Amino acid sequence: MTFTVAVAGASGYAGGELLRLLLGHPDLTIGTLTAASSAGTPLGQHQPHLVPLADRVLAETSDETLAGHDIVCLALPHGHSATLAASLGPDVLVVDLGADHRLSSAADWQRWYGGDHAGTWPYGLPELPGARERLAGAKRIAVPGCFPTGGTIALAPALAAGLVLPEVTVVSVTGSSGAGKALRPNLLGSEVMGSASAYGVAGAHRHTPEFVQNLSAVAGEPVAVSFTPVLAPMPRGILTTASAPLRPGVDAAGVRAAYEKAFDGEPFVRVLPEGTWPATAATVGSNNVAVQVSVDADAGRLVVVAALDNLTKGTAGGAVQSINLALGLPEGAGLPTTGVAP
Amino acid sequence: MTFTVAVAGASGYAGGELLRLLLGHPDLTIGTLTAASSAGTPLGQHQPHLVPLADRVLAETSDETLAGHDIVCLALPHGHSATLAASLGPDVLVVDLGADHRLSSAADWQRWYGGDHAGTWPYGLPELPGARERLAGAKRIAVPGCFPTGGTIALAPALAAGLVLPEVTVVSVTGSSGAGKALRPNLLGSEVMGSASAYGVAGAHRHTPEFVQNLSAVAGEPVAVSFTPVLAPMPRGILTTASAPLRPGVDAAGVRAAYEKAFDGEPFVRVLPEGTWPATAATVGSNNVAVQVSVDADAGRLVVVAALDNLTKGTAGGAVQSINLALGLPEGAGLPTTGVAP
Amino acid sequence: MTFTVAVAGASGYAGGELLRLLLGHPDLTIGTLTAASSAGTPLGQHQPHLVPLADRVLAETSDETLAGHDIVCLALPHGHSATLAASLGPDVLVVDLGADHRLSSAADWQRWYGGDHAGTWPYGLPELPGARERLAGAKRIAVPGCFPTGGTIALAPALAAGLVLPEVTVVSVTGSSGAGKALRPNLLGSEVMGSASAYGVAGAHRHTPEFVQNLSAVAGEPVAVSFTPVLAPMPRGILTTASAPLRPGVDAAGVRAAYEKAFDGEPFVRVLPEGTWPATAATVGSNNVAVQVSVDADAGRLVVVAALDNLTKGTAGGAVQSINLALGLPEGAGLPTTGVAP
Amino acid sequence: MTFTVAVAGASGYAGGELLRLLLGHPDLTIGTLTAASSAGTPLGQHQPHLVPLADRVLAETSDETLAGHDIVCLALPHGHSATLAASLGPDVLVVDLGADHRLSSAADWQRWYGGDHAGTWPYGLPELPGARERLAGAKRIAVPGCFPTGGTIALAPALAAGLVLPEVTVVSVTGSSGAGKALRPNLLGSEVMGSASAYGVAGAHRHTPEFVQNLSAVAGEPVAVSFTPVLAPMPRGILTTASAPLRPGVDAAGVRAAYEKAFDGEPFVRVLPEGTWPATAATVGSNNVAVQVSVDADAGRLVVVAALDNLTKGTAGGAVQSINLALGLPEGAGLPTTGVAP
Repeated sequence: MTFTVAVAGASGYAGGELLRLLLGHPDLTIGTLTAASSAGTPLGQHQPHLVPLADRVLAETSDETLAGHDIVCLALPHGHSATLAASLGPDVLVVDLGADHRLSSAADWQRWYGGDHAGTWPYGLPELPGARERLAGAKRIAVPGCFPTGGTIALAPALAAGLVLPEVTVVSVTGSSGAGKALRPNLLGSEVMGSASAYGVAGAHRHTPEFVQNLSAVAGEPVAVSFTPVLAPMPRGILTTASAPLRPGVDAAGVRAAYEKAFDGEPFVRVLPEGTWPATAATVGSNNVAVQVSVDADAGRLVVVAALDNLTKGTAGGAVQSINLALGLPEGAGLPTTGVAP
Repeated sequence: MTFTVAVAGASGYAGGELLRLLLGHPDLTIGTLTAASSAGTPLGQHQPHLVPLADRVLAETSDETLAGHDIVCLALPHGHSATLAASLGPDVLVVDLGADHRLSSAADWQRWYGGDHAGTWPYGLPELPGARERLAGAKRIAVPGCFPTGGTIALAPALAAGLVLPEVTVVSVTGSSGAGKALRPNLLGSEVMGSASAYGVAGAHRHTPEFVQNLSAVAGEPVAVSFTPVLAPMPRGILTTASAPLRPGVDAAGVRAAYEKAFDGEPFVRVLPEGTWPATAATVGSNNVAVQVSVDADAGRLVVVAALDNLTKGTAGGAVQSINLALGLPEGAGLPTTGVAP
Repeated sequence: MTFTVAVAGASGYAGGELLRLLLGHPDLTIGTLTAASSAGTPLGQHQPHLVPLADRVLAETSDETLAGHDIVCLALPHGHSATLAASLGPDVLVVDLGADHRLSSAADWQRWYGGDHAGTWPYGLPELPGARERLAGAKRIAVPGCFPTGGTIALAPALAAGLVLPEVTVVSVTGSSGAGKALRPNLLGSEVMGSASAYGVAGAHRHTPEFVQNLSAVAGEPVAVSFTPVLAPMPRGILTTASAPLRPGVDAAGVRAAYEKAFDGEPFVRVLPEGTWPATAATVGSNNVAVQVSVDADAGRLVVVAALDNLTKGTAGGAVQSINLALGLPEGAGLPTTGVAP
Repeated sequence: MTFTVAVAGASGYAGGELLRLLLGHPDLTIGTLTAASSAGTPLGQHQPHLVPLADRVLAETSDETLAGHDIVCLALPHGHSATLAASLGPDVLVVDLGADHRLSSAADWQRWYGGDHAGTWPYGLPELPGARERLAGAKRIAVPGCFPTGGTIALAPALAAGLVLPEVTVVSVTGSSGAGKALRPNLLGSEVMGSASAYGVAGAHRHTPEFVQNLSAVAGEPVAVSFTPVLAPMPRGILTTASAPLRPGVDAAGVRAAYEKAFDGEPFVRVLPEGTWPATAATVGSNNVAVQVSVDADAGRLVVVAALDNLTKGTAGGAVQSINLALGLPEGAGLPTTGVAP
């Protein structure tokens, strides 16, 4: 038995990555593809790497074009998902790759995004405690943001085990595809290449409340999060560098044991051997997260580094993993565990 | 009147950048150029961009070849400078671009580098309080490390003014030239491009004690420093992201005022207009540092971002700036204030 | 039924890409992995992206370690394959990803590589006329060089149909992985990034005689080939720009028809829609070749541009495609037709 | 005595590079800076690397704002220069960095650009025979296109000396800044990085008639030019690979001698030592051109490779060099002969 999937926003980077994974998924069949301004053009014009779908013509994104599928994936700017989801009915699995349904607090939504809160859907980060149970059978899934995916995986074991104080700093170095295909001068190749730049500094990035929500839930107490994203000259990848003050008595062995235990059996998260540090290149195109932990005894801090592909595990791969769980398919179906490197 | 300069280690990246700047310096004349394994070959083979020096043949690095100059710059691996300096006599201005004479604590030297401590020379970071006085007339200069240059400039104003607690985190995203021309597999283009990777995490990098030394001196109390370098796919540039817990009552206006005051009149440090964030590309080839500050009220932290060129302000430009101060030349002589972008 | 594959040279880029493809191949099982100086270390140390094989320990490359497999792939420097192949016996399918068995002329071998010619094996470029027949059942396969793969595919239809004179120019812009993991200063990230550079110009590259051999066979007359490789700052990809003087009376429609006919039914070669030009990024990680043709009426020349991934179709994917044909498996088994982009 | 310079189009890449050079020019003073949609904003917002000009506010581009200067440089899209130049009067030195006045044939203009031909101005490529005489005292200068600059320098000596047949192929690998700051999807960093792509293939690029014009003038007979530009993932640089059939009896020594003679005394063109090949990185930020020549005896072709910085020698540096000649200043005034590398 296979399930049909419609993809709204098929001309963008998230939509393209989703289609790449769906093409390799044994149980999912690609249905209607939609777009906004690119409707009416062939997909090959926008996603030349998706050769098997090159001649598929993009439809308008609407209730009608998306109807009739088992699964509808919405890779849209925030603010567009709620209405579409309502029209699709409760039996369709609707997966929101945008931000609309990630936050549980309407006040947070109002503050960070503005406008009415669309509601909260089951959060598609299977590595969180209890997440697999919440996702099983779900008909609505909010795919996490790419930065919170890395930062939550990096810090959750330490906060859950009480190894650190609930005040963390996260610097996430990201490739440019995280910003999508928006035509902004600072995203031009001439500007991006050869440069590292900060943006959304000091809590100004909209992923910040998602960090706080995830980490506070894990810690069982409010966690203060200082989050700074840095744009680096690469198309894909997020390298998360997270740190927090160690609680007294916590040592390197204890930290390592906690992380190895936390990720034992996780299909896509791997604590690297000691002395090895993550590089994003090793994760490109895969659903993997590579983690390393270290204790800085002088500074009294835990430092965790995690690498992932922002478009795969950070977006489309995370979505497929949650779809698999929702439908009762093998969790790893269609998800590469091998990166494309160098 | 001009001064003659010999450069030891002319085939490396630091040596090459120093020569680039010296070629444009009105008061300094390039003398002997030396190297180790490349001795006997023309400079053009190693530094094809230094066209006016292409036919200069590299001499062996030795007391004899370096003798007879007003200034000797040593761009050598650590451990080589002390003996050479001793042989050159007290009247020659010896500038160590390596690490040998940066640390004041022999114990720190022993721990981080091993072997005997060569001693401590005046530290060539003019932006530190009192530094210009210490450098005036100096005959020995220790050029700071590239990471501590950025991190010290980023955090000194806040620590000096008591705006933050003495516990800081620094994540510095660096281009590959900081690692020099060492033939290591992880520095191959195929590995570096498309990847962000951490290394020397959790206080393992040798620049850590230099951070602690500088920042503690400024703060007047011991400062705990959590330092993590990240390698990004670009040849040059360091983007320093630094943060620290705000002391009670400190707000954004106070922070901004402190930074603008601290760098008022500094020829190479500029606090960017509000809403603008530093990018390393804008500093490439210049001696500039671009700084931006922000207060994260939710997390209760100051966040400072600083961009510089690791080879210019972070190494060779810093050296020339200190040489100018030592010799009583205009501080900015030979130092570009304009970057090469895009 | 599955076949077992040993890979010699598993720590290099060609070996790594081969293993990536083998991990996704339904009919092939990975057996012994060998290396030279890296023998005794885990594969994860050299190929961190191949997570499922991270703990596999590399054996020494030798007759003994490679024995007992259905297939042995040799991703070794030239000069090592003949002896190993002889020891493995005639029933083992031996696939040489190196240069030893590509050239049919012992004189050419002597001139370009020096030493004794090891012999000529069936040439693994299925797109050449008659190649599929020669590969069916073969027990020895010479995998083509990455540049000749692109250049032959680009020019063969025009030469076979007599559309152009037998004097062609080929400029191939390549990513750095084509040079392997050799620790050479010009391959350092600091040197490669931000730079385009020529090398092996004017027929000095060892792939030149392979071009001549392939194209002359297709044309049925000697073809003069001017080949220049250019190194560009990217890890993967070859963009081949080939041109040749048009014979009288040949027009754009005729050229296009010839190319569409030549590649009709080819599983991995696609002539792009008119007005679209190939980009290597769209082929990364796939076995695809994207081709576009154009007639420059003013200059009287045919211009063909072809993009491929040098490690996939240009090396390891080409090898798997030929293995499939040799064993009677579906030609596309285990070979991605979707690139990883952006 | 200094001359004042107004720059129209100061927010773009050509304008920015021109300002960078003007800041270091001893005889030229920067006057009014203008822009189109960016008028009213500070230059620092668009050119953060030009720190000394950060607070300069951009004026509207118009007759009035540009009046009153000794020199007016127009870095504008084609079609805007003629009217402005007419209004500025015959005594002002007007330098067109755009295409309007490069072509001598109105028919060519009509075919390649459309609309009326604005006329032909003295062509600012001093390396062409007779160019210095034509530029001395000129009040109008047409700055060459970046591709023809490289291709003309690469091929002129061979064509002038009759070493090759008048049918040349040129493949020019360029960085992305050549396309300017246009917000086009294919120029996004995510698209450019990791990719080589062709465009304007087979004579479709507007620089083609400029190649033909230059090379035919040098050769004294019509030259057929097959020109293909390739976009590579780097901000700056053009690597020109040019080839042509050798006339009978021409050998490597003769070629080399012709090139060394042709560029003897040229301040910015250097024939590299034998065995060394040009890399664009070595020319970044400088006005240099690095040339290497080779004879491919098998293919019977001359191959020339030339590296330059498209924004410096290819645009703004070429403009300054011509301005110097027009005004009787030292030809190299304000022009770096040292690149910024790595």
